[in-house]
Amino acid sequence: MEEKVLVIGGGAAGFTAALSARKFNRKAGVTLIAKEKEFYSRCSLPFVISGEIENFERVFHDIIEMCENVGINCVVDEVTKISPQEKKVKAKQREFSYSSLIIATGSEPCIPPIEGVKREGVFTLKSLEDGGRILDYVGKVKKAVVIGGGAIGVEIASALWNLDLEVTIVELLPCLLPTCFSPDSSEKIKERLKKEKIKVVTKSSVEKILGKKKVSGVLVEGKEIPCQMVVIGAGVKPNVKLAQEVGMNIEKEGIKVNERMETSLPGIFAAGDCTCFKNLITGKPMPSQLGTTAIRQGKVAGVNAVGGNEKLEGVLNSLVLKILDLEVGKTGLNEKEAKEEGFSTVMGKIKTTTREDYYPGTKDLWVKLIFNPENEKILGGEIIGGEGVAEKMDLISFAIQKNSTIEDLLKLDYCYTPPIISAHNALVLAAENAQRKLKIIRRRG
Amino acid sequence: MEEKVLVIGGGAAGFTAALSARKFNRKAGVTLIAKEKEFYSRCSLPFVISGEIENFERVFHDIIEMCENVGINCVVDEVTKISPQEKKVKAKQREFSYSSLIIATGSEPCIPPIEGVKREGVFTLKSLEDGGRILDYVGKVKKAVVIGGGAIGVEIASALWNLDLEVTIVELLPCLLPTCFSPDSSEKIKERLKKEKIKVVTKSSVEKILGKKKVSGVLVEGKEIPCQMVVIGAGVKPNVKLAQEVGMNIEKEGIKVNERMETSLPGIFAAGDCTCFKNLITGKPMPSQLGTTAIRQGKVAGVNAVGGNEKLEGVLNSLVLKILDLEVGKTGLNEKEAKEEGFSTVMGKIKTTTREDYYPGTKDLWVKLIFNPENEKILGGEIIGGEGVAEKMDLISFAIQKNSTIEDLLKLDYCYTPPIISAHNALVLAAENAQRKLKIIRRRG
Repeated sequence: MEEKVLVIGGGAAGFTAALSARKFNRKAGVTLIAKEKEFYSRCSLPFVISGEIENFERVFHDIIEMCENVGINCVVDEVTKISPQEKKVKAKQREFSYSSLIIATGSEPCIPPIEGVKREGVFTLKSLEDGGRILDYVGKVKKAVVIGGGAIGVEIASALWNLDLEVTIVELLPCLLPTCFSPDSSEKIKERLKKEKIKVVTKSSVEKILGKKKVSGVLVEGKEIPCQMVVIGAGVKPNVKLAQEVGMNIEKEGIKVNERMETSLPGIFAAGDCTCFKNLITGKPMPSQLGTTAIRQGKVAGVNAVGGNEKLEGVLNSLVLKILDLEVGKTGLNEKEAKEEGFSTVMGKIKTTTREDYYPGTKDLWVKLIFNPENEKILGGEIIGGEGVAEKMDLISFAIQKNSTIEDLLKLDYCYTPPIISAHNALVLAAENAQRKLKIIRRRG
Repeated sequence: MEEKVLVIGGGAAGFTAALSARKFNRKAGVTLIAKEKEFYSRCSLPFVISGEIENFERVFHDIIEMCENVGINCVVDEVTKISPQEKKVKAKQREFSYSSLIIATGSEPCIPPIEGVKREGVFTLKSLEDGGRILDYVGKVKKAVVIGGGAIGVEIASALWNLDLEVTIVELLPCLLPTCFSPDSSEKIKERLKKEKIKVVTKSSVEKILGKKKVSGVLVEGKEIPCQMVVIGAGVKPNVKLAQEVGMNIEKEGIKVNERMETSLPGIFAAGDCTCFKNLITGKPMPSQLGTTAIRQGKVAGVNAVGGNEKLEGVLNSLVLKILDLEVGKTGLNEKEAKEEGFSTVMGKIKTTTREDYYPGTKDLWVKLIFNPENEKILGGEIIGGEGVAEKMDLISFAIQKNSTIEDLLKLDYCYTPPIISAHNALVLAAENAQRKLKIIRRRG
């Protein structure tokens, strides 16, 4: 029988899965059902709003055309039901049959149950349409409140600030980016935002969105913050309705997948934001919800759906953000997470500069590496500031993946040239700091 | 007996060795004998000449003051003789005794035996003094010839070009940077230079430096290239006179050191440009002559000289250069070197962009990874163009150090955000390319 792969979802996970299936097995028929007719990176949206990217046309491609170019059959439709017994999928306009199925239904924004959340002037930012709505509205307002100080919240706040709005971020937890950074790192990000007069209110929640028809303010801890616009950046939740209806195993709100991206139903795979996968270090279930994870899972799901045998052992959720001019990054476990997982920890912490002091344009750089003092293995890293932060994070992530120790990092054969990077490698310096601390700890017995 | 460490040489290797000894053993007496009273990174000199760094005062520190601050005794003097039997060192002004000795005498520029090489207007660039002489002279001239298209040659050429000189590089071998890059990479660098009207003449040597008292041109393959200035960037050779006189083992012109940075004479260590160490991949002797190697060897020598037991297994000679606005990097073995070492190779080659196409400021990026097809281990990498090249090289270097395979790189848990870095990691793409080629090779049997 001819292999017929059906992919539900036209985001990064879905398209990558379809493409991988296509490449791995030239004979398989690959069909992708997309809800939107545009393919785009959701991560790009804040940067169109900020004006850094000139318009939304720059960031999307026609998904049908894109798929045609690589031999994938693409249909724009909305799936309403999966029938695993008959190996059929029902969409609004037609029915599809499959020999293997990949679910990549993504996620949708969490909307906190706040009074007034339906008022005009309240937005989320997940789709091109959302983006367009915000851009249409933003010209008419002076003040905005962003609900949620996570990655999306901070990116939206920066974007609105870039358009000269007065911006306030309201975050429930004590720190910004609480799932990424430990408090001291997060404090540095807050300082940078405050320097540009972006207000940050932590340990607080928006109790009510005020206004008649349109938003006129929000109520936070009983006090009104006037604004004409509210953007909700309170995280996303997996789209698992279809999966749930057929009784697929769900974990932490996402579709449970194994290392081959198989769901609990035979012949059905899942990838991307709709899944719950596992942390590479702890082996514990963890929603990832990153574009990179979507791509990496999509590759595995696609290959396996057409008879291959790829595996992904887990994710470290390596991420980098640009907040105003500040690059920040995180991978593996941060200090807090490591402690919560029961690891004892020793930190390698340094503040240095990216280049030698004498070379113009050098930037401040804070590196924190988290090690397990028992086996000296690296558990995670956080970087605030500097240049080349994405690549620095990638190295830390690779070091975790390869079970590396303090000693391994100390032996790094690194590069140096004055106009680009310091003669004293920041990661080596951080590892040296951890080594010194370990010696002191051990001397004390 | 009190440990008395004596370090000969006030460059990166010498100072690092002294500092490491100081830190590792607080009781040891550490004395450093420096020939120059300034401490500076030699790598910074081209960037002072280019005007990127405002003046030479920015790049140096008073070495005596610097040493005093960290508890190192520093003497500015020139060592003339080592007496290993008596554990004494004779300098021009006084004598020193030691319990262990570290030789970090560095290197000096190679001066090819060309007629006219002593003429006024002929320079090398190794010391602050050299740099000062070039800066004094450069205002009076319009055209310069750089002899040697290696790292220093290309950096000097870029610097002089930055000062609006007409510059010609003359390189003996068929390619620029022949010891760093394979021909196709090197061709891209040449193209970039040519675009800015920096002339590059390869497979040619300067036969004669013309002029009466002052330089008026050079003779290359029988044809005159007019110029008022010649800078020799033909590499450096280890300063091993002192070591040779006491019968120390010399290899490939450098002082032979083992993994502990021990020379062939007991109690005498060496570090930096004056040594010949070994390649981490091949285990074969290799002069390194990089500032980073000097620092890494200095750390090991310093610790071991005061009773520690540090090791360095080898070097990969990871390097990064900024040539005009082009970042380029290399680590491990390049294609040519791998073949010369008898490895069969499979290349992972890609051309991509640093960020997504739609984000302004994205740059072209060529990555070439060299793998051993038998065990799929990575042997080296070359990068031409892009951003964050130093850090990308560091990751490749770390991957080599950790014996990583194509598969390991494919599993990289990398970072992505539109304003900084693409959703498709360049190293992963290059590894995928190698994987595809391997599959084809294997299918063909």
